[in-house]
Amino acid sequence: MSDAANDLEFTHLDPLGHARMVDVTPKEPTHRRAVARCKVFMKPETTVAIANREVKKGDVLAVARVAGIQAAKRTADLIPLCHPLLVGAVSISFDIGDDHVAVETFVDTVDRTGVEMEALHACATAALTIYDMCKSADRAMTIGELALWEKTGGRSGTYRRVED
Amino acid sequence: MSDAANDLEFTHLDPLGHARMVDVTPKEPTHRRAVARCKVFMKPETTVAIANREVKKGDVLAVARVAGIQAAKRTADLIPLCHPLLVGAVSISFDIGDDHVAVETFVDTVDRTGVEMEALHACATAALTIYDMCKSADRAMTIGELALWEKTGGRSGTYRRVED
Amino acid sequence: MSDAANDLEFTHLDPLGHARMVDVTPKEPTHRRAVARCKVFMKPETTVAIANREVKKGDVLAVARVAGIQAAKRTADLIPLCHPLLVGAVSISFDIGDDHVAVETFVDTVDRTGVEMEALHACATAALTIYDMCKSADRAMTIGELALWEKTGGRSGTYRRVED
Amino acid sequence: MSDAANDLEFTHLDPLGHARMVDVTPKEPTHRRAVARCKVFMKPETTVAIANREVKKGDVLAVARVAGIQAAKRTADLIPLCHPLLVGAVSISFDIGDDHVAVETFVDTVDRTGVEMEALHACATAALTIYDMCKSADRAMTIGELALWEKTGGRSGTYRRVED
Amino acid sequence: MSDAANDLEFTHLDPLGHARMVDVTPKEPTHRRAVARCKVFMKPETTVAIANREVKKGDVLAVARVAGIQAAKRTADLIPLCHPLLVGAVSISFDIGDDHVAVETFVDTVDRTGVEMEALHACATAALTIYDMCKSADRAMTIGELALWEKTGGRSGTYRRVED
Amino acid sequence: MSDAANDLEFTHLDPLGHARMVDVTPKEPTHRRAVARCKVFMKPETTVAIANREVKKGDVLAVARVAGIQAAKRTADLIPLCHPLLVGAVSISFDIGDDHVAVETFVDTVDRTGVEMEALHACATAALTIYDMCKSADRAMTIGELALWEKTGGRSGTYRRVED
Repeated sequence: MSDAANDLEFTHLDPLGHARMVDVTPKEPTHRRAVARCKVFMKPETTVAIANREVKKGDVLAVARVAGIQAAKRTADLIPLCHPLLVGAVSISFDIGDDHVAVETFVDTVDRTGVEMEALHACATAALTIYDMCKSADRAMTIGELALWEKTGGRSGTYRRVED
Repeated sequence: MSDAANDLEFTHLDPLGHARMVDVTPKEPTHRRAVARCKVFMKPETTVAIANREVKKGDVLAVARVAGIQAAKRTADLIPLCHPLLVGAVSISFDIGDDHVAVETFVDTVDRTGVEMEALHACATAALTIYDMCKSADRAMTIGELALWEKTGGRSGTYRRVED
Repeated sequence: MSDAANDLEFTHLDPLGHARMVDVTPKEPTHRRAVARCKVFMKPETTVAIANREVKKGDVLAVARVAGIQAAKRTADLIPLCHPLLVGAVSISFDIGDDHVAVETFVDTVDRTGVEMEALHACATAALTIYDMCKSADRAMTIGELALWEKTGGRSGTYRRVED
Repeated sequence: MSDAANDLEFTHLDPLGHARMVDVTPKEPTHRRAVARCKVFMKPETTVAIANREVKKGDVLAVARVAGIQAAKRTADLIPLCHPLLVGAVSISFDIGDDHVAVETFVDTVDRTGVEMEALHACATAALTIYDMCKSADRAMTIGELALWEKTGGRSGTYRRVED
Repeated sequence: MSDAANDLEFTHLDPLGHARMVDVTPKEPTHRRAVARCKVFMKPETTVAIANREVKKGDVLAVARVAGIQAAKRTADLIPLCHPLLVGAVSISFDIGDDHVAVETFVDTVDRTGVEMEALHACATAALTIYDMCKSADRAMTIGELALWEKTGGRSGTYRRVED
Repeated sequence: MSDAANDLEFTHLDPLGHARMVDVTPKEPTHRRAVARCKVFMKPETTVAIANREVKKGDVLAVARVAGIQAAKRTADLIPLCHPLLVGAVSISFDIGDDHVAVETFVDTVDRTGVEMEALHACATAALTIYDMCKSADRAMTIGELALWEKTGGRSGTYRRVED
């Protein structure tokens, strides 16, 4: 992101910072996609219980998947300045590591605005659902590394996160 | 958390993992509180823009605070097996560091079940709102260290996270 | 529905059954319509009370009509893998029989996906509202024969239910 | 249900039928439970695909279970004159027959009003989710026999449906 | 309202005005009631069309009544710092004048916080629904005189608005 | 509005007034805009407290602005016969007078139906939020003069309210 771009986004004119939903009506609807990822860090025995479907509240990843998909649809309800849009596809995959579950979400739409927030919101909600279902056995779980990994479509073009 | 406690929470009997909302009706309503925290990591110039209220979409922390409070109230709508409850108090504080904004949420209720998920959900939603409002200038922001820091009230008693 | 069609819809490849919202972004928006029907079976005196607007909780069919219309708009919130869409028209009609009230819903849209679920959801919610308003006098009411009766538009073309 | 009870519920005084949410504040909160059931009738090969987890959209019963639980929590949002309450437990079970899937829901609470509508709403939403996930292969599925099977607690006491 | 009371409510200590939901958990649940009123001013022929049920979109007051009842239940979803609570009764009455429709709402609950906002929100939503249903014929309608008329229960006691 | 137009909107044919959401699918999506205004009348010292950000519950106008923006997005959820649409821009401005706060909302979209209700709903919700945040010090506040001020786009063309 260049300094020029920053100048467009940060304004020195209105220090009162009045919130508003910026106008997307001049844009044309185009295909947009976003990919987000995060990790839920936990005790090794919690990853085993999830993998073996032995968690008392139910099949953790099946429930987290549904929670994430539904959250993608309700993003604009929760994030105040986020534009409402109609998600056209949502999928979520999980990868169980030794001390964590990795969550990856994919969201597509044809709209005037991108789906980054939808992908991130789905990811966060799936992770929180994992926390909720396992918390009585592992209250110290932590959710981290929630980030946008890819974004395609729209005026600002493609963004791909660079691995650290 | 002892092994004995784990045995209560992980079940080896039903490998199908049928999701259900566990019964809290036998419990008495008592005062519950939870504290959660997370950090939104960002470029130093983004923290400056937030502090100086120069972000184009509006006063970032004022909007994120409202988003977090409203999210606390809607936690059971988003997290499938989370019990609905009536939050009795919600407050959110922010601390602007060199390369991050720290978020801390406090939720209280008098109910049959705890407010850990409400505090975590408010924290995640406030963080996502910060991301949304600054993303056009700093797409690589990351949300991390989302964790429960304190929980009081209820049968399982007080929990305080140990600093790493 | 031919076996070939079934092969397209039932997959033998992924026995884990990972839920996902299928991608509709490659489709073009076209006009879609769906019609659904159901019946609420009840005691004859309950149908009389509904017809005469003598039910204590209010005008049953007026309330059920509003409930059904609002439900059509919120279908994707309730049915997890259902795509969000903007309903363009909803109407609901009732027919009072000797031992039942018949409900019929009509939903139209211009979108990439059909409105079958919207029509069925409106029908079910109108029927449940009838149950709710009359239940203190007739707890044994039953809702049945909830089915899609017609669907037009979209790649799969027109479907009309064959009367039994 | 005696004629006397009917007289209490049907009113001949106000033919205009003004809808209102009746006052439950004079009642004391007590433990309430409700059980509802319905069936989704379908082609035999559809029941086989569900049982074998071969439906393209995902594990049908896992998704339907989550949908039903979430619907129980949102009943008062959809059914206009239904009192809001905090469900304390929800569970859903399925039974796969030759030509149908049977759905059974159990809801508990401690409140001033019963959970019949919550159990019925959960049941209907789980059934509609089954329809949604299988509809591309079996559009003629029908939902029927949606009824309250048991209700305990509250002033009107226990109700048990008599098998036909 | 005395100056002393104002001192309790307006704070000179924190000029940043950080929004928070104040803590009601120390309070005991008690019976609360609120009454709100407003008027929708319109052309005389519009009042006639409403009274005669000749408005194209449907029976205006029947729909507005349902809209107001449902709005009462969702007040805390819309008003950010409003505490969630379970409304125990809602009723709405209308009075058709020469150039306006008057709306009056009554809300009751047993809770730790009052229902003023629920009564006002129901009143505003019923009025907006009247506007929506008649707007194609009378776009200049105005909603006014929306005020709390009575509030009972709670620590601050009874309030009755004084007629101008 | 001519008598001819009224004839189109008021129907003498169906005195039962069956509510329905009218069909907008034959219309083409075009750019639409609406502007609404209202006033919250209050004691002079309340306007001072709002201007100086000394209200205990937080920065009144910052919270009301967020509430109004979110309400614009949820209009079709609250107003039964209102068509769902995707708002493309929302902004809200306030003007503090001697005895009132004036609220003005602007909503834009590209859709088959107008955004009058979205602008009015945002305005009413921002006003109710102001009431909520100041009510403990000034319970007699009144909301008035809520009206549509401008509407552009769509078949019925431009409407501009004439100042009284």
